[in-house]
Amino acid sequence: MAKCDALVVGAGILGLSTAYHIKRENPDAKVIVVEKRAAAGQGNTAKSAAMFRSFFYSTTNLTLADSSVEFYRFLQEKGKVNLNIKWTGYLWLFSKDHYRKVEPVLKELSRRGLNYTYYEEEELSRKLKMETHVSSNDEAKAMGLKDVFAGIFIPKAGNIDVNALLNFYEKEFLRMGGEIYYNTEVKKLIVEPEKPFGVPGEPYFWQKSRISGASTTKGDVKAEKTILAAGAWIPNLLDPLGIECCIKPKKRQLFSVKAKTRELKELLNVKGFNELQCMPFTILPEPSVYIKPAANENAFWISYGDDFPRAYLLEEEPQPEENFYRYGIYQVLVKYFPQFEGQNPSSAMAGLYSINTLDGQPVIFEKHGLIVVGGASGSGIMKADAIGRIASALYKGDEYAELYGNNRFRVSDLGLEKRRVENEKLII
Amino acid sequence: MAKCDALVVGAGILGLSTAYHIKRENPDAKVIVVEKRAAAGQGNTAKSAAMFRSFFYSTTNLTLADSSVEFYRFLQEKGKVNLNIKWTGYLWLFSKDHYRKVEPVLKELSRRGLNYTYYEEEELSRKLKMETHVSSNDEAKAMGLKDVFAGIFIPKAGNIDVNALLNFYEKEFLRMGGEIYYNTEVKKLIVEPEKPFGVPGEPYFWQKSRISGASTTKGDVKAEKTILAAGAWIPNLLDPLGIECCIKPKKRQLFSVKAKTRELKELLNVKGFNELQCMPFTILPEPSVYIKPAANENAFWISYGDDFPRAYLLEEEPQPEENFYRYGIYQVLVKYFPQFEGQNPSSAMAGLYSINTLDGQPVIFEKHGLIVVGGASGSGIMKADAIGRIASALYKGDEYAELYGNNRFRVSDLGLEKRRVENEKLII
Repeated sequence: MAKCDALVVGAGILGLSTAYHIKRENPDAKVIVVEKRAAAGQGNTAKSAAMFRSFFYSTTNLTLADSSVEFYRFLQEKGKVNLNIKWTGYLWLFSKDHYRKVEPVLKELSRRGLNYTYYEEEELSRKLKMETHVSSNDEAKAMGLKDVFAGIFIPKAGNIDVNALLNFYEKEFLRMGGEIYYNTEVKKLIVEPEKPFGVPGEPYFWQKSRISGASTTKGDVKAEKTILAAGAWIPNLLDPLGIECCIKPKKRQLFSVKAKTRELKELLNVKGFNELQCMPFTILPEPSVYIKPAANENAFWISYGDDFPRAYLLEEEPQPEENFYRYGIYQVLVKYFPQFEGQNPSSAMAGLYSINTLDGQPVIFEKHGLIVVGGASGSGIMKADAIGRIASALYKGDEYAELYGNNRFRVSDLGLEKRRVENEKLII
Repeated sequence: MAKCDALVVGAGILGLSTAYHIKRENPDAKVIVVEKRAAAGQGNTAKSAAMFRSFFYSTTNLTLADSSVEFYRFLQEKGKVNLNIKWTGYLWLFSKDHYRKVEPVLKELSRRGLNYTYYEEEELSRKLKMETHVSSNDEAKAMGLKDVFAGIFIPKAGNIDVNALLNFYEKEFLRMGGEIYYNTEVKKLIVEPEKPFGVPGEPYFWQKSRISGASTTKGDVKAEKTILAAGAWIPNLLDPLGIECCIKPKKRQLFSVKAKTRELKELLNVKGFNELQCMPFTILPEPSVYIKPAANENAFWISYGDDFPRAYLLEEEPQPEENFYRYGIYQVLVKYFPQFEGQNPSSAMAGLYSINTLDGQPVIFEKHGLIVVGGASGSGIMKADAIGRIASALYKGDEYAELYGNNRFRVSDLGLEKRRVENEKLII
């Protein structure tokens, strides 16, 4: 595996989508993926809630997510692969103040043709048997929790089986002749002068130089183009070369609570929101604790993406924190959903978001012969297909990528130099 | 020193300028500076070439540098303090291609009233006894070095005695009643909830919280406002709290070559550029190796700010690299100035630039009760006074800072959220 046209570092969802699209569009190219773990998606891809929504204010976000979701739907409906897509929908709950702020944004989205249903507080309270008037509770009030004023239900949203998606990209990539080397960790990227002078320690600054591959635990791999799709590990491979990527890792935790009681089973299987007749993915008023239904596990996955003072920190095996559930999430959750009173998680996991600290949207750029693909900030799975296509267009040197559904996307819009992304106004 | 109004972390040039201006504008405030080293400016401030220029395309850069330089001139001319300002000027040498690019920029600056003198290649060759036609040398050609086509001399530029400047700020700060604690290292910033609930591990995300001081090797210091001016160490103190500052450290090296030979003495004391009758600070064509004259040491300080693949790396005691001079700087230098043939450095030093990776201009913002002041990217000394005044305005909550010379400067222009800086087109 010493030489190739394209070397993709990382077999997470972004690495595999990128490798698949590069190979699909360049069938004769020798494309190699190296991955330090033993199988695909075993890093932070495995720690995702794997939710998706096709409902964003930012056209950048909407285009990336919608075209990816439509591709996943196509795969599933054409019977190519069962991605086990569950259209649970998103139920987004707002305080009065917050709703007043997002109302014009929602109206604008409605004008653009995006669907949602408005729910009044009374109906939410009745259907979900939830406590909407949390301010009557002294502790909730002291905690600064706000009453639910309204909710919106977003139908084009749900979750996906990320392993099935990984398998699709992996299998098709291999079928086309791509190669994947697992248990192969990149120690560093290789920099070489275009014209070697044979002086010790070259390249020097007066030489043109480029990234020409990677040193791995199984030896060096030289490549015409190296594609770094290593998620949270990206800055650790770029800092030694002085390349800024604006990506930092931050821990995210998910706690699974079993629906042991009658009340919780009723909540999990609440009728009337979606065709599945289950609870939608539900986002509480700010702070936006969220609840993912997992009917097949008879459980809820509950989380909160904390910002300050949560560290930017790279950990190989980040651990969930019992106290984060007990004193953090649970204290908020139980005020709105008394059904969770006394319930503890039966399991928990933690992963790292690769946060683009500029604007929270993905980063795809080329520098010194290296293509960097990352920073999806927790939306990597729902945008993976579009991101892979854009990275592949950059690999080919195209100005535009053709996304699924004939959406053209200007590649440089996700770069750092000519970055042009619309800010998101609907952030969970 | 357990409690204060303003705690400034770092007694480098930016920390002391900030502390001085905060104390000057808030004489009743208890202002404390903590510094891990034994005296002022012993970190990377000490490793600077201490050059300044009042010649930038970006009005942001020009305003910050010019108002600071004018303040330094005022200090010196009013006899308040001898800053040993040397108006050596900058002599900037360009290849033909590069000159064609900067020509419109220079004309624009000329229209704005900034002075410079144009030098033709022949005159440079004659005056400096330099080799302008380097392309006649095979090695230089292979290295990609370009002939000197023209040069410009910028008179409002030179160097300053940074220790004298540090002493001024320190002495005046102490005279007004400020306190400095040396040998006092900040281990971490303290985060506290506004309303403590007494639960383990608080604050949690549902609590409002803020940075309320710092834990130091000499104990905790609580402050109404904490001001982080720790240069290259800023990201290391912010990452654990998940705050992005867009600052990364990068090593810079300076090599001192004695003017031992008659030719080098002649070059060092070249007539006709400035009143000092010495060599100006000289910037070679790209790659822009630069030469600082140090007539009092009978030496030149020579440097180059390498970008790729120089690591972003925090080191307590960065070391100069012999090979960086031998195979890097020297190889370029000697092609243009054969006077340096065979000359080795008699001493060398290395420090860290605190690079703002967004645009190379300073960063001054407040988040969670913390004010961050840094990222001057190698221009910290020449902009220190303005930066201190802007940080002080932010401390007071003012929208505008009043710079020396009655320049108003919008504080949020250097922040991260409403950042508004003009890009620089004259980068060394």
